[in-house]
Amino acid sequence: MWLQKEMSLKVKKRGFHLITDEILQQLPEIEQLKVGLLHLFIKHTSASITLNENADPTVRQDLERHFNVLAPENAPYYEHIFEGADDMPAHIKSTLIGSNQSIPVTNGLLNMGIWQGIYLCEHRDYATARTLVVTLNGE
Amino acid sequence: MWLQKEMSLKVKKRGFHLITDEILQQLPEIEQLKVGLLHLFIKHTSASITLNENADPTVRQDLERHFNVLAPENAPYYEHIFEGADDMPAHIKSTLIGSNQSIPVTNGLLNMGIWQGIYLCEHRDYATARTLVVTLNGE
Amino acid sequence: MWLQKEMSLKVKKRGFHLITDEILQQLPEIEQLKVGLLHLFIKHTSASITLNENADPTVRQDLERHFNVLAPENAPYYEHIFEGADDMPAHIKSTLIGSNQSIPVTNGLLNMGIWQGIYLCEHRDYATARTLVVTLNGE
Repeated sequence: MWLQKEMSLKVKKRGFHLITDEILQQLPEIEQLKVGLLHLFIKHTSASITLNENADPTVRQDLERHFNVLAPENAPYYEHIFEGADDMPAHIKSTLIGSNQSIPVTNGLLNMGIWQGIYLCEHRDYATARTLVVTLNGE
Repeated sequence: MWLQKEMSLKVKKRGFHLITDEILQQLPEIEQLKVGLLHLFIKHTSASITLNENADPTVRQDLERHFNVLAPENAPYYEHIFEGADDMPAHIKSTLIGSNQSIPVTNGLLNMGIWQGIYLCEHRDYATARTLVVTLNGE
Repeated sequence: MWLQKEMSLKVKKRGFHLITDEILQQLPEIEQLKVGLLHLFIKHTSASITLNENADPTVRQDLERHFNVLAPENAPYYEHIFEGADDMPAHIKSTLIGSNQSIPVTNGLLNMGIWQGIYLCEHRDYATARTLVVTLNGE
């Protein structure tokens, strides 16, 4: 079975956001899969997707602070600067973190660890709604 | 054909470890696939999976040393500190390196380059056994 | 439907290169898929694959400059130095950026954002042609 749909996520402010529930609420079809994979793809180059801890919110705040160190604004060698100081760091974070993730599906549920959640990482200061292509494959 | 199983890996010390053989020993079913993909997913947020050189062990040691620079302990802005100095760096490394990888399968074998191997990257000082969800799909 | 083939890419100089067209020219079979996924896998540990902006070339130049800061040559703690100053940074970049990516296919086309393209990231100063394993799966 293949199922593919585009999802628009609610606008997020810059930072790391837990979106497991926001995705699953738009994906009731996952219950039909006994075994398979969920593929998440973000159609943007200044936001990214990852998995990380779903409990303590300071993990997400520390990630935002540390990725701002790893990909700082206003590095003297940036030439791609006309879209704002947050733009080139956003492209760097996109490649460091990734635009796509695959998660196993088992007996109709995401088979993640109990502490794992899906994150939308918003790297722009003033973003619009982000679009995911969500693909379910399995049987 | 879909095959999915959970694998428990032997406890590893902090660092980068070659686990290609440890996975394949628990996956004899790969021989049945003429063409397909192997998906590896780690059910943790303080360890990660990557592919890198399978020969010289100093590559793995240099990776451990350099990721300790990229995600240092005790950064002054960390707030998630109650699980130990190695914990927040482990979460950062997890997102930098990744929790899931897919590898092509061709004629019953992993179709990697001759110098490529699968790594378990253990980011905690005192970890317990890590669990992978391994999914084979193909025909 | 499964289709898998190896592709040799034209030799690239060190840096980030847009290869969307180079891949699609060798993959006319993608038109047969109504829904599915394209999996790209690079069989090397000193080059990597990512998605990022397909328009302004300064994004690719800034990425090259910034990844040279994130994974510098001649760090005093590198022990894997016998293949040249560019070698250990190449391995680090490979794990930071990734060796494999999956992209949704919808109605015979890659379903990326309009600003997204596929990059080959060449991390060696003098590389030979790089090989990808390309796997199409869908219906």
